Amino acid sequence: MGKKIGKFTVKFENSPRIISSAGVCGKKEAQGPLKNEFDKIFEDTTMGESSWEKAESKLQAEAVNIALEKANLGTEDINYIFAGDLLNQCMSSAFGLRGLGIPFLGQFGACSTMAQTLFLASTTVEAGISNHSVAVTSSHFCSSERQFRFPLNYGGQRTPTAQWTVTGSGAAVIGKKDSGPKINMATVGVITDLGIYDANNMGAAMAPAAAKTVTAFLDDTGTNPSDYDLILTGDLGEVGSNLFQELMMKQGIDINNNYDDCGLMIYFKESQDVHAGGSGCGCSASVFCSMIMNKLKNHELNNVLFVATGALMSPTSSQQGESIPGVAHLINVTSE
Amino acid sequence: MGKKIGKFTVKFENSPRIISSAGVCGKKEAQGPLKNEFDKIFEDTTMGESSWEKAESKLQAEAVNIALEKANLGTEDINYIFAGDLLNQCMSSAFGLRGLGIPFLGQFGACSTMAQTLFLASTTVEAGISNHSVAVTSSHFCSSERQFRFPLNYGGQRTPTAQWTVTGSGAAVIGKKDSGPKINMATVGVITDLGIYDANNMGAAMAPAAAKTVTAFLDDTGTNPSDYDLILTGDLGEVGSNLFQELMMKQGIDINNNYDDCGLMIYFKESQDVHAGGSGCGCSASVFCSMIMNKLKNHELNNVLFVATGALMSPTSSQQGESIPGVAHLINVTSE
Repeated sequence: MGKKIGKFTVKFENSPRIISSAGVCGKKEAQGPLKNEFDKIFEDTTMGESSWEKAESKLQAEAVNIALEKANLGTEDINYIFAGDLLNQCMSSAFGLRGLGIPFLGQFGACSTMAQTLFLASTTVEAGISNHSVAVTSSHFCSSERQFRFPLNYGGQRTPTAQWTVTGSGAAVIGKKDSGPKINMATVGVITDLGIYDANNMGAAMAPAAAKTVTAFLDDTGTNPSDYDLILTGDLGEVGSNLFQELMMKQGIDINNNYDDCGLMIYFKESQDVHAGGSGCGCSASVFCSMIMNKLKNHELNNVLFVATGALMSPTSSQQGESIPGVAHLINVTSE
Repeated sequence: MGKKIGKFTVKFENSPRIISSAGVCGKKEAQGPLKNEFDKIFEDTTMGESSWEKAESKLQAEAVNIALEKANLGTEDINYIFAGDLLNQCMSSAFGLRGLGIPFLGQFGACSTMAQTLFLASTTVEAGISNHSVAVTSSHFCSSERQFRFPLNYGGQRTPTAQWTVTGSGAAVIGKKDSGPKINMATVGVITDLGIYDANNMGAAMAPAAAKTVTAFLDDTGTNPSDYDLILTGDLGEVGSNLFQELMMKQGIDINNNYDDCGLMIYFKESQDVHAGGSGCGCSASVFCSMIMNKLKNHELNNVLFVATGALMSPTSSQQGESIPGVAHLINVTSE
């Protein structure tokens, strides 16, 4: 049985572990610094499909297939799949995974989805009702742009605070095991809305949520940032990361020594013209499920706080004059 | 610890129970046969808000508030809220609940959301990581019509197989307790797609998923339909319900003696002009969280299979020529 620690944090006691994971990405991501970390690179971002949405579905299916292969498991071994994405009605998840025959639970946490699905997959294992559960999410630059911003052909100018939606997906298989990266603790975030209205500045909308969740976790556990190898947000980008560090510093918490953000890691800042950095469910998912998992497995990292952040807005809410609610979920992963 | 029964079914052993619930609805639903079951009726379907989406958000907030009041609990007593709806990016959930300060996990299961949120809320209690979790979902006729079909002012003709989206919401508080309606077993469904393309015939798209989930549950548990007081789908409507009964009968399973559908219960068929019946996340949610819970509490019902069904399509997938994937999740609720 798991247990509650403080007000918002829980500790898993039944050792749900990340048995395997896979990160896949598109061409632009493969031109970035993490090229050699990904399990598969799609040079053609249509993935041979007739629409961007179908391409994104394929990304998700590929990530799941590779993660299953690496775990030497078949779809029949998986009791639940937790999947979500940014598209209306979580379309890439439903259509990408409909052929698998795995009990399906659709999730919507915007760019916080990787942490949300890891949390829920771990909870089913912890509760004793699952042998293996899969967590997966994705995003695609082209399907996101046309849904949230402008048709690609319009060639709209991007503002300096805008982030670039990652074409990518990450999947992880959670199950009971005696060794390997472990889901140790988790803090599910509350919705935080400080009244940011600029849909081209998601980082600023999500930073307060990240600060609230990380502060809650440190309070609940009585630990300090220096107790962890890495505090990793995804995806605040440049604007949001700076704001997050400032908000933490205002509370007297200095995270500057071991902090990074998936949105800042996935592209070369100078040469790839992504403005404030990467974003999209697929950003933190592909970074976590490839590079971070690789480092946890070879013990370059041993104790990580993975804090995926999401902006829970829709084009309709923005058109109706609503501000942007943010949310951040934290997963503490240890190497053993 | 919970345990797996057969291939798809689980039994909860830590007695997660429905501590309280609330069903709220709009004017049209209050003119139907369940009028006296609902906890609150909004005669003005704008709920005093400036948009249909904001009205739907208010429905959800109201349902949660009433359920909490009935349980004599405050928001600070709730560890997780599982919430979802039909709108793009689950907008009514995020905006309706953002002020509550409860850790938030957005769900997308289309009209299966009530069963999905009940399952996950119960799982957190079962895993020992939550004292109380809330499950909630909603739909609104006007926000759904304009997103999925036509602008209301257009006055489009409805086909005979079309269902009427319920303006309503249902919320339930799950926690450990010694008595009262109990979440006993559950079967999470796999996505089932038999190639239905007509977005005005959701019942037909969802019926095969319902048949698959109920069959899996009966197989896993070695039970018969007659072992239950009521097998309740939501929301297959008239077309889907008939098809579901046929599909079951083809496998030699006769459910006709104790079967009903939330979409057929909520409106008067003859006088309310809803064609094939009610639908929307709020349909099964408001029926289950009011009438069904009332009957479980006074022992008119003692052993119910609640099978919420969802059509996981989006307008974009339909425009791209995709068929409609269905999903159905089953919750076995007993009165003690």
